[in-house]
Amino acid sequence: MFYDTDCGGVVHNIAYLRLIEKARTLLAGQMGMRLADMAATGLYPVVVRTEIDYRRPARLGDTICIRGRLESLERVRFWMGFELTRHAGAGEGVPAGDPVRFVNCRQQLALVQMPEGRPARLPGEWSKRYAAVVAGR
Amino acid sequence: MFYDTDCGGVVHNIAYLRLIEKARTLLAGQMGMRLADMAATGLYPVVVRTEIDYRRPARLGDTICIRGRLESLERVRFWMGFELTRHAGAGEGVPAGDPVRFVNCRQQLALVQMPEGRPARLPGEWSKRYAAVVAGR
Amino acid sequence: MFYDTDCGGVVHNIAYLRLIEKARTLLAGQMGMRLADMAATGLYPVVVRTEIDYRRPARLGDTICIRGRLESLERVRFWMGFELTRHAGAGEGVPAGDPVRFVNCRQQLALVQMPEGRPARLPGEWSKRYAAVVAGR
Amino acid sequence: MFYDTDCGGVVHNIAYLRLIEKARTLLAGQMGMRLADMAATGLYPVVVRTEIDYRRPARLGDTICIRGRLESLERVRFWMGFELTRHAGAGEGVPAGDPVRFVNCRQQLALVQMPEGRPARLPGEWSKRYAAVVAGR
Repeated sequence: MFYDTDCGGVVHNIAYLRLIEKARTLLAGQMGMRLADMAATGLYPVVVRTEIDYRRPARLGDTICIRGRLESLERVRFWMGFELTRHAGAGEGVPAGDPVRFVNCRQQLALVQMPEGRPARLPGEWSKRYAAVVAGR
Repeated sequence: MFYDTDCGGVVHNIAYLRLIEKARTLLAGQMGMRLADMAATGLYPVVVRTEIDYRRPARLGDTICIRGRLESLERVRFWMGFELTRHAGAGEGVPAGDPVRFVNCRQQLALVQMPEGRPARLPGEWSKRYAAVVAGR
Repeated sequence: MFYDTDCGGVVHNIAYLRLIEKARTLLAGQMGMRLADMAATGLYPVVVRTEIDYRRPARLGDTICIRGRLESLERVRFWMGFELTRHAGAGEGVPAGDPVRFVNCRQQLALVQMPEGRPARLPGEWSKRYAAVVAGR
Repeated sequence: MFYDTDCGGVVHNIAYLRLIEKARTLLAGQMGMRLADMAATGLYPVVVRTEIDYRRPARLGDTICIRGRLESLERVRFWMGFELTRHAGAGEGVPAGDPVRFVNCRQQLALVQMPEGRPARLPGEWSKRYAAVVAGR
């Protein structure tokens, strides 16, 4: 979207973090944590650390694909990884390019009970499911 | 998304304008104006005036539906209207509510040739298509 | 700032609403409503309607000045007006321009007690102070 | 500002990156790179990597102070470091707290000539000035 770009003609570096939050939220929904539940219980995933590498820019009209996965689990924290690829927008006479990996991001998160801000233990079922996935690799 | 809400516990008034821009851009795509083409030609739709009424708030996890339409056409400007309805998020045991009309927005836009900033005439086919739609009502 | 601009090379239309919110908040502070108090009491000013006209664009490096004022007061709602002027950025060899009025905005607000979302009566002292100001014109 | 917070009642993790960009831009201005010049020449500092640690939250009305510095210089890239401290907002009867270091951020940047996206060598005077500063420590 226009509001994601800046006057350098490319997607602004901060805009990717909104896209990543959206991917993270959809992934959380698949893991059983829905936004409506979070709002009801006040138990929120909170970003503790972000590392993001910008290798190449994306431009207005590019299609961006985000793949996110749970990378590791501790007692109260967990790491997620995100890989962004883009397809150049297919304008008139401009052939759509091959997908390009252009942004990598890792985020460490914790579950926090708001409004107190108290860290909460990760649900036991997460580590069970996660162990099952790792064993199955 | 979290980044759309504020500490009042509701969606921030500015966030709706991002949602509306997204709806507007999808609608423009259906009318034959794609973002990739705009980036290539530098011919952009520019918001000249926004009027937006906030009747009730939306909250984290609500599903928001936006209906947009072309309201009128002049030589270099046009009006679009947007109506936002929301369904309360369906948490565990919380029945999802009926859709509620809660935000109305009108925007006047112009086509502008960047970087000069020169207003451009609207494509003739727009008024033909638009006349056909109005006649068919 | 870069994050305020878009790939059209100008300040994005939504960015002005962040600048206006900042001006409004500073003005509210001068009227005795500070952010820290709002967070403590949950009594927030909420935007009910925004009207904004974009006459000309601003660009990266322009200096933007915002003048805000209380325009009228009702029992539970009030109108504020904002006028934005800009000075072109003074780059090398580029003479800084005269100030240009380029954006006008009016916002209707209400005081709302969160999290219930109940409208609250405006403080009596506001209308006293406001009457004094109007009488003094 | 309200638009910097989320419904968890705290400042949203992405909002800090806008604050840091503002600090970075002011710092660049002191180093002789002004936004208006960048817009004129198309030579922009571009974020290549961001690392940010969120230790504790800030809330509406807190005063946030950002200290930024140039950490190291290579031929085409450089690292900057930012340290955020906050003072709790001083509401009625609420004593303003001691400053707390609560967010750390490091960013690697490159100078890029837009719109081509070609990396540019850092100005020679930067490394001279930087060497002088390091020698003087």
